[in-house]
Amino acid sequence: MTKITQLLTNNNPAIKEFLNKFDTFLFDCDGVIWHGSKPINKVPETINWLKETMKKRCLFVTNNSTKSRESYLDKFLGMGIHITKDELFSSSYLTAVYLKNVLSLPEDKKVFVIGMDGIKEELNLLNIEHFSLPDDHPVDDEALSKLGPNQDVGALVIGMDRNINFAKYAQGYQLLTQTPQIHFIATNDDSTYPLNGTLYPGTGSVISPLINSTKRTPTVVGKPNLSALESIKELYDLDLSRTCMVGDRLNTDIQFGLNGGLGTLLVMTGVTKEHELKESEIVPEYQIESVAHLLI
Amino acid sequence: MTKITQLLTNNNPAIKEFLNKFDTFLFDCDGVIWHGSKPINKVPETINWLKETMKKRCLFVTNNSTKSRESYLDKFLGMGIHITKDELFSSSYLTAVYLKNVLSLPEDKKVFVIGMDGIKEELNLLNIEHFSLPDDHPVDDEALSKLGPNQDVGALVIGMDRNINFAKYAQGYQLLTQTPQIHFIATNDDSTYPLNGTLYPGTGSVISPLINSTKRTPTVVGKPNLSALESIKELYDLDLSRTCMVGDRLNTDIQFGLNGGLGTLLVMTGVTKEHELKESEIVPEYQIESVAHLLI
Repeated sequence: MTKITQLLTNNNPAIKEFLNKFDTFLFDCDGVIWHGSKPINKVPETINWLKETMKKRCLFVTNNSTKSRESYLDKFLGMGIHITKDELFSSSYLTAVYLKNVLSLPEDKKVFVIGMDGIKEELNLLNIEHFSLPDDHPVDDEALSKLGPNQDVGALVIGMDRNINFAKYAQGYQLLTQTPQIHFIATNDDSTYPLNGTLYPGTGSVISPLINSTKRTPTVVGKPNLSALESIKELYDLDLSRTCMVGDRLNTDIQFGLNGGLGTLLVMTGVTKEHELKESEIVPEYQIESVAHLLI
Repeated sequence: MTKITQLLTNNNPAIKEFLNKFDTFLFDCDGVIWHGSKPINKVPETINWLKETMKKRCLFVTNNSTKSRESYLDKFLGMGIHITKDELFSSSYLTAVYLKNVLSLPEDKKVFVIGMDGIKEELNLLNIEHFSLPDDHPVDDEALSKLGPNQDVGALVIGMDRNINFAKYAQGYQLLTQTPQIHFIATNDDSTYPLNGTLYPGTGSVISPLINSTKRTPTVVGKPNLSALESIKELYDLDLSRTCMVGDRLNTDIQFGLNGGLGTLLVMTGVTKEHELKESEIVPEYQIESVAHLLI
């Protein structure tokens, strides 16, 4: 049976029916709520309306690991969206939770981080010891020769790192190949990264030198992995059949919703083009131009 | 028919027979002639003996693009190996030749280079205009927003770059996706890079973020691509059936020899381990512990 996506347009009955089907909405952020630092037109008031007038539970699940939940909270509040930290599930937070609860990393083991402040702040909050290499680490032969194996390391976590350098890759390679029991964790694997209204290489691309050189495959914590759903279920009494994932990426957001048995709504304000949707084997249940069109 | 590798040991008749079969030897360098800055024991005198006593033609084909032929010449002479620049075929040189002779890049088009001095020096020698981004290019939103498409660019060349940074990847992504006719050239795709007696991520790993994010496949100039053989044939009257490729990597050196219809000799002084040879579908014709064992 070929699955068909239902297009929600400015048709109140269809949108009302859609809203009646779900109690909880999980929102992706970039390309759905905002573009970089700019909120998408009328989306903040739509989220507030869903929460306050329609009494829907709204939670936010982002693969972006560069910020901690604390920083995301500031961003939401700055845009006038009324949320609390408990409603935020960033891949930086999910990665820290995964290390603590799923891997149960021994207390004498450290984490080598290739990434930005978001991951480091979340690891600090869970008292997980970690270290990184400086952004300007030298890369001459002698400096590289010091980047060998390290028996104190239990996991390597890699996420988006705009300050990536060869020393970080060299250290990561040495750890992953010399000590096979070191866990290899990626916050997410989005191949591109939206910024300034265009795209740049994303986490999935920044991590690829380690995959290519070590021939190891990382555990990917972010969508479409269901670890976000596990974390959400620990805090909220979730009826999966009445929960809908709302996102702009087919291979992360929509795949996550399908993997989790949730409803799925694709928005066209982000990276997915109409022709990509038509050619995709990943088929969302619903499609809408913008989250703002839900406001009826 | 399963192919079998003949092991050459300290058995003079077998080595004599091997040497009688070939007039020309193409040598890989790292792991064959030297390890980094150190010549492998007795290899320099073996090369000189092959050239001067045995009257064999010895040519050198390296995927390492970080040095120009001029720099390589200094390195060989410094180790007491008697060669001339015409006997050297580095992937930096081969890439410049490929741009000039195969792609016939129009004179008003520039090359964007992600790489080290070797490529830049070889492009200069062939009067090919090129530019790079600084190693310390800023990566804030504003700086990245300036790295857009550029209609003056005809090709992107990427090789080993220890000073790789996110700005270089961002610029490369923008060029390759916004202007599909820009040629995408990799000097080589060795996944690892030998240094200090260990391995680090190689060119094939450093280039992978661009492949992963753009979904484009580069033309790989280095081994096992046969462009080295084309360049060699322009200078030398080569009888392929009496030419042998000598190298330490199965998927570059030995594959190159097999692709070109040459004899193949695997040396065990480099990256290939005995068990990898046993499991490999790429089967060299001959195997020897070290090039130095040819000296009889």
